[in-house]
Amino acid sequence: MARLSGRDPSLLRRINSTAVLRVLRSEFGRAPLTLTDLAQATELSRPTVEGVVEGLVDAGLAAEAEEPCAEHAARRGRPARRFRFRAEAGHALGVEIGSHRTAAVLADLTGDFTGTVTHDLDEETGAEERLASAHDAVAELLESSGVGRESLRAVGVGTPGIVEADGTVRLGTALPGWTGLPLGERLRQDFNCPVLVENDANAGVVAERWLGAAAGAEDVVMVLVGLSPGAGSLIGGRLHRGFGGAAGEIGALHLLGREATPERLLSTTDEPLHPLDEAAVARVFALARAGDERAERAMERFVQRLVHDVAALVLALDPELVVIGGWASGLDDVLEPLRGELERYCLRPPRVALSELGESAVATGALRLALDEVESELFSVNAD
Amino acid sequence: MARLSGRDPSLLRRINSTAVLRVLRSEFGRAPLTLTDLAQATELSRPTVEGVVEGLVDAGLAAEAEEPCAEHAARRGRPARRFRFRAEAGHALGVEIGSHRTAAVLADLTGDFTGTVTHDLDEETGAEERLASAHDAVAELLESSGVGRESLRAVGVGTPGIVEADGTVRLGTALPGWTGLPLGERLRQDFNCPVLVENDANAGVVAERWLGAAAGAEDVVMVLVGLSPGAGSLIGGRLHRGFGGAAGEIGALHLLGREATPERLLSTTDEPLHPLDEAAVARVFALARAGDERAERAMERFVQRLVHDVAALVLALDPELVVIGGWASGLDDVLEPLRGELERYCLRPPRVALSELGESAVATGALRLALDEVESELFSVNAD
Repeated sequence: MARLSGRDPSLLRRINSTAVLRVLRSEFGRAPLTLTDLAQATELSRPTVEGVVEGLVDAGLAAEAEEPCAEHAARRGRPARRFRFRAEAGHALGVEIGSHRTAAVLADLTGDFTGTVTHDLDEETGAEERLASAHDAVAELLESSGVGRESLRAVGVGTPGIVEADGTVRLGTALPGWTGLPLGERLRQDFNCPVLVENDANAGVVAERWLGAAAGAEDVVMVLVGLSPGAGSLIGGRLHRGFGGAAGEIGALHLLGREATPERLLSTTDEPLHPLDEAAVARVFALARAGDERAERAMERFVQRLVHDVAALVLALDPELVVIGGWASGLDDVLEPLRGELERYCLRPPRVALSELGESAVATGALRLALDEVESELFSVNAD
Repeated sequence: MARLSGRDPSLLRRINSTAVLRVLRSEFGRAPLTLTDLAQATELSRPTVEGVVEGLVDAGLAAEAEEPCAEHAARRGRPARRFRFRAEAGHALGVEIGSHRTAAVLADLTGDFTGTVTHDLDEETGAEERLASAHDAVAELLESSGVGRESLRAVGVGTPGIVEADGTVRLGTALPGWTGLPLGERLRQDFNCPVLVENDANAGVVAERWLGAAAGAEDVVMVLVGLSPGAGSLIGGRLHRGFGGAAGEIGALHLLGREATPERLLSTTDEPLHPLDEAAVARVFALARAGDERAERAMERFVQRLVHDVAALVLALDPELVVIGGWASGLDDVLEPLRGELERYCLRPPRVALSELGESAVATGALRLALDEVESELFSVNAD
């Protein structure tokens, strides 16, 4: 709680400023508002609102609307001044650094998307080249959007592995050279704003709750399916990272019951798949759809493994909803068998839904985390 | 937040009363306190404290200490009156209704234990007989402690299964006739105070944090090992029940990887164990210790299953600490192999500790939940 004290007028000003900014940035403020509108909505006095708005204009966060409506101008001599939130005053950036692509997505301060860029990568790409690809995707996006780097107020990044609070990848076996990489530190050299690094599945579940299959749900597990599966969880609406940031790192789960690797489970030959070749999984799915028998059997084994992973998460956490994501195509085939098996194993089976954001979930969630950071900065009453 | 308004003097009185009660009930208040002591500790005026203490004495929650210390009496003419919290003004009760026993434990309002009673039961005992056994254990405990039923301010109950908020057992396969039992409703007929029913492993983890192996830890998983294993979790110090109360119901986990039941895994003959015969597990442990080869192999299979269960929970939740509980003897043998296997499977292996409360964990946790209820009632400033 902020302490309201007569000795600290700057804090009081900040609280008032925050109240006005909230109204300007709300749905109500989508149409420009007069000082009278703002005084009514905030319950502040008109002179107070006038002073606050002046400060917001100086800070670049509000602007006078240029053209008062013609009707209004006709009725009265001098129309009331109207103000709007300058959503373009800053931007937030979401970045995915994944196994087979990097992606960047940009939004203004109200969270409206202004552009996206994706670069495909080979799974075996080294760490430096992967970082360069992310750097290039961001530069391309900023240029095509006409947004300067200095306009960025926060950057969110989603990537596989266990990520520490400072953005160091403690362990990341899905990307070559990723374990031990000081990813946060490296990316901060590129930006003059906070950079938040988050596990990819954690970013994914945040995105699905914001704009996808988990809208309105508070207790959600999202599983990013693949050769290196991972899970992200919301508990009571908040990201559950675990004591050491390793919650949902379920890559080893399938090893527990039987000693078969996913590369072998999914193989349609006697040779196992390459451990990083996620695209091979999609090929097996396509073959199974076309009626290839070996692919069908591989697919069955794959579904059994998915059931195993999801059931273990469900038994441990008892979520309201499980969202299945990963790559876009073919996954809808696994939902029905998955639901059936969960009914068998789980005392209280959850709802199961397919990701609505598909491949864009990780970058979108990273953007949401960046927007949260911007909002907590804009609306903080504790900072000076 | 309570709204402090001049229009509601009764609320203000209640807040002041709560402040005085907290001091009287604290470590500081273990020695009786004068009105001056209380005024200093609460920062309330002396007349306010005097009025509040009068009210607490009338309500039976405080009493004047009978004998002021002799030294004090010698130094001054008339000694200051001293007051103490009446811990004996009420009691809280914890009850376990388990597969092979019922147990009851009683404490006064400061949480000091005043007695415990345990009744052994056959695993196949029916629901009515099991309820009668719990009823008898409580009656025996109250009588031997010289505490009247009307002194009980809250009752906590721990039992296997998925328990709904009203205390109905939604699903409880470990006890015959338990599924669907309106346990809360049945028990409330016995008591004139709140009755809280909780899953046994959930009660267990609360107990270990209060008085056992998890003291000071915030992110804890406790596994009650046995033929019907269950787990309870604290996340950020709070019980994680899951969306439908089924979090940690891991009985089916071992089925996921391979189709072997625990009764078969643990059997030393060609016949599986009886599904409810938890005592047989202890016998197998004892045989293995004595060097019986079949028992040693059964024990190995059992440890593998435990590893599987615990690893799945750890991968999903990433706790700081895993507490292994269940029955008292033999379990310490599983800690080392468990730690070794968790190192293999978990990206961030947690600490692993043996339950310190052993068989008393469930009843003790149920008591803690009852005490929490009493405290929230005593210290609530929202109630009238």
